[in-house]
This record gives sequence, C-alpha cells and structure tokens, in this order.
Amino acid sequence: MGRLTTPGAVIRELKAADDIVILAHQSPDGDTIGSAFALMHALGALGKRVRVECSDPYPEVYRFLHDGYEPEQFNERLIISTDIATEQLFGEKLERYKGRVDIAIDHHPTNTRFAKRTLLVPAAAATCEIMYKVIRGLCDEIDAKTASCLYTGLATDTGCFKFSNTTPLSHEIAAKLMRYGADAAYINRHIFETKTRQRLELEMTALSSIKYYENGRIAVMYIPLDMLVSTGVSEEETDSISSLPRQIAGVEIGITVKQREGGEFKVSVRTGEQYDASEICKRFDGGGHKRAAGCLLRGTPETALNALVAAACAAKKLS
Amino acid sequence: MGRLTTPGAVIRELKAADDIVILAHQSPDGDTIGSAFALMHALGALGKRVRVECSDPYPEVYRFLHDGYEPEQFNERLIISTDIATEQLFGEKLERYKGRVDIAIDHHPTNTRFAKRTLLVPAAAATCEIMYKVIRGLCDEIDAKTASCLYTGLATDTGCFKFSNTTPLSHEIAAKLMRYGADAAYINRHIFETKTRQRLELEMTALSSIKYYENGRIAVMYIPLDMLVSTGVSEEETDSISSLPRQIAGVEIGITVKQREGGEFKVSVRTGEQYDASEICKRFDGGGHKRAAGCLLRGTPETALNALVAAACAAKKLS
Repeated sequence: MGRLTTPGAVIRELKAADDIVILAHQSPDGDTIGSAFALMHALGALGKRVRVECSDPYPEVYRFLHDGYEPEQFNERLIISTDIATEQLFGEKLERYKGRVDIAIDHHPTNTRFAKRTLLVPAAAATCEIMYKVIRGLCDEIDAKTASCLYTGLATDTGCFKFSNTTPLSHEIAAKLMRYGADAAYINRHIFETKTRQRLELEMTALSSIKYYENGRIAVMYIPLDMLVSTGVSEEETDSISSLPRQIAGVEIGITVKQREGGEFKVSVRTGEQYDASEICKRFDGGGHKRAAGCLLRGTPETALNALVAAACAAKKLS
Repeated sequence: MGRLTTPGAVIRELKAADDIVILAHQSPDGDTIGSAFALMHALGALGKRVRVECSDPYPEVYRFLHDGYEPEQFNERLIISTDIATEQLFGEKLERYKGRVDIAIDHHPTNTRFAKRTLLVPAAAATCEIMYKVIRGLCDEIDAKTASCLYTGLATDTGCFKFSNTTPLSHEIAAKLMRYGADAAYINRHIFETKTRQRLELEMTALSSIKYYENGRIAVMYIPLDMLVSTGVSEEETDSISSLPRQIAGVEIGITVKQREGGEFKVSVRTGEQYDASEICKRFDGGGHKRAAGCLLRGTPETALNALVAAACAAKKLS
C-alpha cells in the first residue's frame, strides 16, 4: 500500500516532471475525463510532454472535451491516475501500468492505495475539485478549455449540484471555473438536457412496466433484454434510469431489474431515508451503499421479481 | 411609473419600518415564496410585525417553507412585492394592494415599475439573489430557515444551477447559503427528484404522443384535456413537461400543445440556438423569449397541429 500525499507535494513533483501519462478509468465518466484532460492542458501549457490514456472509447456526450484528441507517443517517466479507486478499473489497455502508478488523484473513500503516492480527498464531491486545487498551484491562470473540463467533472459527479455530496466548496469552485471561462450553460444543456430518441423509448417502456407493492412503498421496474438490444442504449445510460422508481412520490424502495443474457438479472436498489439498500442486496450476495446498492440474480423473470419483492417487504425500517 | 432604487436604500427603509406586508405573485413558485418568506423571517428576527400574502394556495411541494403558516392580521404601513413583474400577477385576493406597493424587489426585465420604488436587478438569476443581499444588509447572521428559503428560490429559478441564467454569483450565494445552514440536499431531493404517480402517467402519455417532422428537427407533443383531468396534474407541473420535446437529441423546435376547454389550445414552443421561438408564436399573436415562447390557438386538434407544424417548418434559421 502506497502512502498518502498532499496537494503541495503533488504540485512540486509535477512542476519538476516531464513525459507524463495520465490514466482515466474504464467506462470513463465526466469526472475521470474532465480531471485527466484538465491536467493534460495545464501541464501542456507549462511546456511538458503529456498524454491521456483510457481503455475504453470516450462517450459521445463528452466529445466537446476530447474532440480530435490523439495521444502523443513517448516513453513515460511519470504515471498519474485520475478518479481511479482500484487497479481493477484500469481495463485491458492499461494493464501494463498496473503496479507502476506514481501518483493517484482520487476522491473515492474506497481507494485501495495502489499508487506509490495517493492524493485522496474523500470529502470532495468530484476528483475535479481536487484537480482544481492542483492546477491552481501549477498555473497562475486557468484557461477556458481547462475550466470547462473541470466544470464537467464537478457537474456530472454532483448531478449538477443536486446530489447530497455537493458542498459549499463545490459551488465556490464552480463559480471560479465560470469566471475562468467554463461554458457552464453549454455543458449543462448538452449533458443534462439532451436525450436520444432511443433512450426516451427505453425510458417509456421501462416506466410503463413499473409495478407497485405495499401501498406504493415499493416500486419495481423491469427492463427486458430485447428492449436494451432494440434501442441500443448503452449500459451507462441505463444506469441513470435506475434512479427513476425511487423518485416516485411515496416510494421508499425502488428496484430496477435489467435482464441479461443467459437467465441473469442485474438488479439496482435505491432507497429513501427509511431503508438500507445494501441490506436488501446482501441477501443476494450483492452490496453497495445505504441508499444505492446492487446485486445479480439468476432464474426466470418471475422468480427473480418475486424474490426481490419478498426481500424488500422483509426489509427492516431504520430507526 | 415609479423610480428605481438601490439595495442600500431598501435596507435603510426596512430597518426603520414596521407593520410590513410582503406580496407573492399568483400561481406562486419557489422564487416568490422563497424570497417572501426569507424576508419575513429576517424582519421578524428584528422584532417587526410582518406577514406574507398570496392570492393562491402555496403548492404542496414547497410545504417545508410555509408549513403551518398563518398570516398575522394588522394594518399594514409598508407594502413590498417580491418577484412580481406586473400588477396583473397579483391575483384576485391581492387586488386591494394595486397602486399601493411601496417597494418592488424583482429580477424580471419586464417589470412595469408599478411600485413607488423598484429594486430591479435583471442580471440576477432569481429574486432570491437580490433578497440575499438585502437580508445580509438587515442582519449580521442568516438563520438556517431563512437560508433554506433563499436557496429554494435560487435552485428553482436556475433549474438547480443548470439553466443559462446561472452566474458565478449564483454559485457564490448558494455556497454561502449552505454555510448558513440551508438544507440543499433535502430541498433538491424534494423538489427535483420527486414525481407523483399522476405526473409520471401524464408524462408517459405525453411522450408517447410525440411526432417528428423534417427529419426529427421538429417535435410536437400533444396533451389531451381528458388526460389532464384524469391525472389531476396542476398547470404548474405540466409547464415543466413542455421542455421535454426540445430535449430530444436533434430536435431544434419542440412544441407542446395542451388542449383546453372549448376548442382552445395552449401552445408552448422551445427552440435550440438556431431558431427564434417568439417569431413562431408571433404568427399566432403570441410572444415570449428567443428560446421559449407561447401562444393560444383555436380549432380542432388537427387544424391546430397542422398550423403549428407549418409555422415551424417556415421558421427562418438564425444566422
């Protein structure tokens, strides 16, 4: 296990370094892409050779952050990971960096300290919050492109400042990034206010499948495999659909069941303040957090749904 | 037409005043309720007699701001309006205050200056931003209840910091309100992440009615009257549904047609950067802003929809 480090130490090390590789996690999201590209721009502005690497293609929705980007090839002398909690999230193409990361910059409390030095701030709503501090220490000014990268990670990890991880500091950093030229209006419209027709179709089918139990305290949504195939909606997009059942007034336990190949079901459980989602998922060898957890089930749709509803009905109210 | 005034002058006047009535606009939203109740709490903390009045009942979703509130009766000596652009928005019960408002505090550029003195800040994303400044001038400290009122108006008028009216100052004020104890996580979950089953049902019917024209550049959604009646969804809630067609990828002109009694249709037009919504609505004697406008049509659903699609097809691309 590597040791923990400080923003100041990371800034000093980066100032002295060159030929730097920055790693983003597999199935990249706004925070890993935003923090990696922001750091790349900042180090590039200091005249350093730097590239970003990721095992998976960057999602279309973040094209404005990476459009036309081609990593420059060189022998790396410093390896940095951004927003990566464990080496299991490196993905296939980054295998060769395992055990070699010099500095991990991350906000996940579950970070395994796989890097030699880890800059970990679990109170940060996004890795981009930590990266803001690092970049401010590297450069006197932040350009608009870098500010837009950081804003994107901050906005996506906080659900546009809606989730409970949002702190006063998140808002203060957002204000500063906007003053540095982050195009918040464009980014928000693009990320939060645009849905593909396929996604809309899937959402409507999923919503119309919702069944209620125990006077509407429990809601179960079912997404059949053929629907996922026919709409071609990505796994990432269906994840955000999982929050819908819990958002219905009166629902305390919202369950989303996604059918997979070969009689498997991916289950996501979201709860209100009164129930523990991870406790329900533990019954099926799953796990997660108090408000959001997951598990895998096997069987027919009927047996899977019945087992889940029974587990939800049996869940104990938190005192 | 009354004269414009400054925050400093308003603060001085409020410090010297007593027996104050604060008016919120009809069909009250988060910003008018939030700014009115925040000012009431602040003036109350200074030992003044004060009440809030509104023509319509406060929506259920804002119950946490007004729960159990009963206005105290007294002869008013100072009348203040919050977030009211024109006296037409007073509603029936506030008729008697027309022509008598001493101070209007507002951010609508269309404010008619009906009050003797108007504190108008059109650059403010919400009236609550202006009210924050006024209250900071009145009191040394802001209590958690007042902070939650102000946060609510700021969050609702900016779509939780998502809309293009959000400024760095909006974020800075949000940060300060959270530090003063505003329960942002609760407020956001309650306002932005909760839907009634009726609302969900209406949304599904509306979404499944969407028809596309001109290669998906135009989308038209139709909400029949019987659907509105059977779900019992309020006018306010259907307003937020109007933004859905424009959010579909590729749609530049999103039109929502709500059927009303007696062969009338309430139409809402939302556009992307390439078209002017108000220009389309002007053809039907309506109006509004560049990105959001409205009009009323009469006839059968078919004639109304055909006329709207024709107008949308004829709309000129902005250069």
